[in-house]
Order: sequence, then structure tokens, then C-alpha cells
Amino acid sequence: MKVQGQLLRPLREAASGDAVVVIDQRLLPHRLAFETLATPQAVHHAIREMVVRGAPLIGATAAYGLALALRADASDGAVEAQAEWLKGARPTAVNLAWALDRMARHLRALPVAARAAAAWALAGVIAEEDVEVNRRIGEHGLPLLRDIAARRGVGPGRPLNVLTHCNAGWLATVDWGTATSPLYQAHEAGLPLHVWVDETRPRNQGASLTAWELGQAGVPHTLVADNAGGHLMQHGQVDLVIVGCDRVTARGDVCNKIGTYLKALAAHDNGVPFFVAMPTSTLDLAVADGLAEIPIEERRGREVTHLAGRTEAGEVVEVAIAPPGTQAANPAFDVTPARLVSALLTERGVVPADESALRALMADAA
Amino acid sequence: MKVQGQLLRPLREAASGDAVVVIDQRLLPHRLAFETLATPQAVHHAIREMVVRGAPLIGATAAYGLALALRADASDGAVEAQAEWLKGARPTAVNLAWALDRMARHLRALPVAARAAAAWALAGVIAEEDVEVNRRIGEHGLPLLRDIAARRGVGPGRPLNVLTHCNAGWLATVDWGTATSPLYQAHEAGLPLHVWVDETRPRNQGASLTAWELGQAGVPHTLVADNAGGHLMQHGQVDLVIVGCDRVTARGDVCNKIGTYLKALAAHDNGVPFFVAMPTSTLDLAVADGLAEIPIEERRGREVTHLAGRTEAGEVVEVAIAPPGTQAANPAFDVTPARLVSALLTERGVVPADESALRALMADAA
Repeated sequence: MKVQGQLLRPLREAASGDAVVVIDQRLLPHRLAFETLATPQAVHHAIREMVVRGAPLIGATAAYGLALALRADASDGAVEAQAEWLKGARPTAVNLAWALDRMARHLRALPVAARAAAAWALAGVIAEEDVEVNRRIGEHGLPLLRDIAARRGVGPGRPLNVLTHCNAGWLATVDWGTATSPLYQAHEAGLPLHVWVDETRPRNQGASLTAWELGQAGVPHTLVADNAGGHLMQHGQVDLVIVGCDRVTARGDVCNKIGTYLKALAAHDNGVPFFVAMPTSTLDLAVADGLAEIPIEERRGREVTHLAGRTEAGEVVEVAIAPPGTQAANPAFDVTPARLVSALLTERGVVPADESALRALMADAA
Repeated sequence: MKVQGQLLRPLREAASGDAVVVIDQRLLPHRLAFETLATPQAVHHAIREMVVRGAPLIGATAAYGLALALRADASDGAVEAQAEWLKGARPTAVNLAWALDRMARHLRALPVAARAAAAWALAGVIAEEDVEVNRRIGEHGLPLLRDIAARRGVGPGRPLNVLTHCNAGWLATVDWGTATSPLYQAHEAGLPLHVWVDETRPRNQGASLTAWELGQAGVPHTLVADNAGGHLMQHGQVDLVIVGCDRVTARGDVCNKIGTYLKALAAHDNGVPFFVAMPTSTLDLAVADGLAEIPIEERRGREVTHLAGRTEAGEVVEVAIAPPGTQAANPAFDVTPARLVSALLTERGVVPADESALRALMADAA
């Protein structure tokens, strides 16, 4: 996406061809800064510490991490071991495993000497495919938005009100974003749009990343506490909800940022359509029951008790918001049962969140 | 309640008898500091700026505010005008109107010359009644907690897990709290207890007040982001929810801190009992449909985009968490429909959230 006239991506190859350059997303919205990742260790650290985050983006970044690792040793054992180690950086998003498995499968079929170069090239393909996948998600989503806009009387002075949770924007992908792709395309097409941005505690990806992205793109938006969405829906102020996902099961259960389930409940209770933007790389047909089977990452309690912000003087400082010594729990994701999902927006089209539809979608593609 | 061995209340009469002393709740949990309110203007400001907050506490504080106002002019006109002006400090909680109407009704029947002294005395009565009301809410709630504890296998090493939202603790009342009263009484009675404390954005009353209160009382607790409660309930980690309220309608709709509705939906979806602690002074029989009829206070967006915390050095600073210029919406309350409420815990007993039960409860009392 363009930021201040400049084409920007959260992940790109360094001109030297031996490193990738990422946006350090921990510093936004206060500072736009880049980090060069030249070793697999640096990639692993960037994923674990959320320098890069977002299911599609960590998949593509990890692919480059594997490519960097194979420059030292590209044996079968190394491919296997490095892929497994990179998968461990974040446990919940399936794209990480998807990208690394795809890399490993492809590379094992090649002579050892050819693997490092092939890995780098395939990482590039995975990244470019992600851009195209997200563009298509938007293309498939746009008619849905137009349809709801028409039914809800959207026009000059009455925008389509969309609520989103966390950041499933271009910062979470290589470009376009997943949930934001239909929004950016609607905005470009001139559909009056207004986005309610869930703050998304504890890491505030909504307040810091989604609000920043939408602001840069000129999309009207309003930040709200995560607590506010139900109230807004009760009062007809939300025409649809659209979120991203970190893993979707065969039967359509959606694992996404903690708090998504609460918004899905409110949408269901108020007859508001609840859409999930899902690249098919996020679908995990090996898992059926999301609640029972998806491991939920438990992050440090300090992310709840402390947060970083910008002082009046422009300095970024970390502050404590709870009494000293307060224990906190920090589950990073939750699972929204398929029954609460109106539809999944994929690069192959819009499908209901149910097993037969999902299996058919993947069979058609195979 | 006792804090570090000292009996502490968030509202008490100054020894001089011409002011009240309140805890400045905006400074907790970083600093325990008191403010003396000697004029009706100071009381109005303290309510509006949330130096004091919590439906029962603002009712009692406003009563003292009216008493202070009548020292200058106790005419019928002044009683009326000052009561109306004080009601305007916060629009949603009904206790404010309840306390001021009760004061005005009582005072109008007295000679003008006797009103200032009588007002001060009645404010004291209202405050002491609040303590007793809350004690009884706990007394009626305790058997409910014991019952659920027995059914859920609570014992050594397996505490009763309670989730609460916002602060309906002793800081929100004159003493005991509403939602916390059964919890404090259960803790004192030796029932193993663990409280999930919702942070409660945007003002973080959970992180700053409830966590502090429970810590001072030695009640085991864990702070969570507001987003986490649904996930905890899906995984059987919440045995019951208990919250306070700012206004309850004749048919049992509950207006409470923004985000309460989302937790009620999750409780309902997971078969978790959802209790509302309600002094009957919070019941507004003049209102039926909470969603349509209760005015919801919209507070400054700055409460969402900025927050105060404690630096490593112990200094309290305000920081921005969103991009400069971000617009925010800040509805302070939402309405939980009666259908999602398992029971109301009142000082007169436990009642279902429905009109006939509530009218019968009030008729019995009258």
C-alpha cells in the first residue's frame, strides 16, 4: 500500500538478496521503522516477539527464514529441523506451518546444492501469491459489501459501517490485508465507508496498526474500546463485521485474535453479518473442533499489566496500569464456532462456514 | 474495608462537619490520596470527573453535595435547582437521581431554617444505609455461591472462579461493594475463591480499582483483557459472573459499564450463571425497555486514545496509544437484556430479572 506517496510493504527482500527488511510493527503507530533480518535466528525472533505479526505475514517471513537457514546447511535433516524450529516461534496460526511445509516439500525434491537458491525463490513466490490472494479476497468481498450497502440505505452522509477487530490489514500480510482488502477496494470504488476499529487489547493492534493503516489510506474510521462493539450493534450502528483469522478448521470454526468470539456473539444476537476473510492457506482440514483441538498461545501477563504509549513530548514509554505484582492471564486467541460465522471470504470465492462447502472448495482447487 | 490495617471508606464526613473527604479514584492504583470536597461545586466536579464513581457512591456523595448547597440557600427553589444541577453531573446511573429525589422530598416538608442541618443528617443516613444494603446483598448472594461451588467441585486447590467486570467493589459504594460483597463474605467464610478481573477499558476500573481492592483484601485474582472472558467461559474456567449495575429497568434490563452485555452473551452461550448485584435504589420502575429508554453517557474520546500509567521510576504519566488525531467513540455503558440475566441479587433477596418479580419485591417493601 502507499504511505505518504511511497509504496510500502511490511516484508520485502533486501537489495543485496541476502536478507529481508520488515517494518517493526511494535513501534507503530508512534514510529515507522524498519529492521533487516539477515539470519534465521533474527527471523525467529521477529516472529516470536511480534516485530512481524499477522498469520499470512508470519508465513511468508518464515519462508524467507528457512531460505536463510539453508545457506549454511541444506541437507534433508536441516530442512526438517529448521522448519520445525521456525514453526515453534508462534503456535496458533496455521500459515506458519503451511508455508514451511510447502517449502520443505518442494525443497526435498531438489538436489541439496540447489536448495538454498530455490528456497529464496520460493519464499518470493509465497510472498507474491499472498498479495494476489488478498487482492482476490477483496474482489470477492466487494459485491457482498455493495449488497449490504444497498439494503441498508448507504449513500452520501450514510456510510457503510463496518466493525473490525485486531489488525487483518496490509500490515498483517504482504499487501492488501485480508479483512481490509474488501474495505480498501470499496473505498477506492467510492462506496461511502466508515470503520469501527476495535482497540484490541492487550497488544492494541487495532489502535496502533489498523487505525494507522486506515488513516494513511484516508478511510474514515473511529477507534472504540473492545467493550463497545455490542452496544454499537444493539443500536444499528454496525452494518457488518469483518475479521481475519489465524486458523480455520474443517467445519468452519474460526481461531482469531482474543475477543473475536465476543463480537461474533453480539453480531449473531443483533442480526449483523459476521464475515471472516480467509486465505485458504489458513484452512486446516486436519482439525475439526476448534475449541478442543487448536492450541491457544498464552503470552506474557506483562502484555496486560503494562503497555507502551507516546508522551506529550513524543517519547515512547512503557507504563504499568495495574497494582505492582498483579498477576495477569493472556490468552492470545479464541475460537468462534462456525455457527456464528455468516460466511468465509476466500481468494476462491465466498463460502459458508461448513465442512462440505470447505472440502468442496479445496477439492475444486486440487 | 480495611486497607493495611486501617478502616477505609471512599466517602466520609470531615471531622469539621462541613465537608466530605473522598478517595481520588483517578489516582489508584498508583497512589492512595484523598480529596476534601467543601462546596457543591467541588462535589459536582468530583462526580463528573470520576474522582468518585460507582452508582451507589455517587448517590451518597451527591446527597452531601445537596446538603452543602443548602447552607447558602435552602428555599424550595434552591432545593429543586441544586438537585437538578447535581443530577446532571452523570446522566446514566439512577442512584444519583434516587438519592437527590429522596433528599428533596424529605427536605421540602421541613421549615427552610431546618433544612441544611437535616440535609446533612439525611446524607449520613443514606451513606450508612448503603453500607447495610451492600452487606445484605452479600448475605443473600453467599448461599448462591456456596451452591455453585458445591456443584462445581470447589475445594482445596480448586477455587470458585468468578468473573467480574468494572469495579462494583467497596470503592463504588460506601462500603462492601455490590458485586464484591458476596465475594468478600465468601472469602471471609473460607470458601476458596479466585476472581477473573476484567481490565474494563477504557478507564480500566478493573485493572486499577478491582485488582487493587482484591489485592488489599487478599482475595486471589487474575487480571485479564476484556477480550478474554468469552474464551475463559468456553473452557470451563468461569463458574459464575457477577457484576454491578447503574440502572435496572422494570422488566429487568441491566444498564452497566460498557462491555457487560458482551460478557452476558458469552455467559449465556456457555451456560455460566450471570448475576447482577442490585441495590433496589438502582431499580428504575419508570423505565421498561433499557435499550430504547436509558440515556447512555458518551464520554470524551481522549479516554480511549490516551491512558495514564506508572513508569518504571514510579511517575504517573499519560500516554497516547493511537496515531495522532485519531477519532474515538466512548459510550460508557451498555444495556444487557433481562433474558441474559440469571438473577438479581438485592438487599431484599435474590429475584429473577422480570417485571412481576421486581414489582412484587418493591410492593413488599412499600
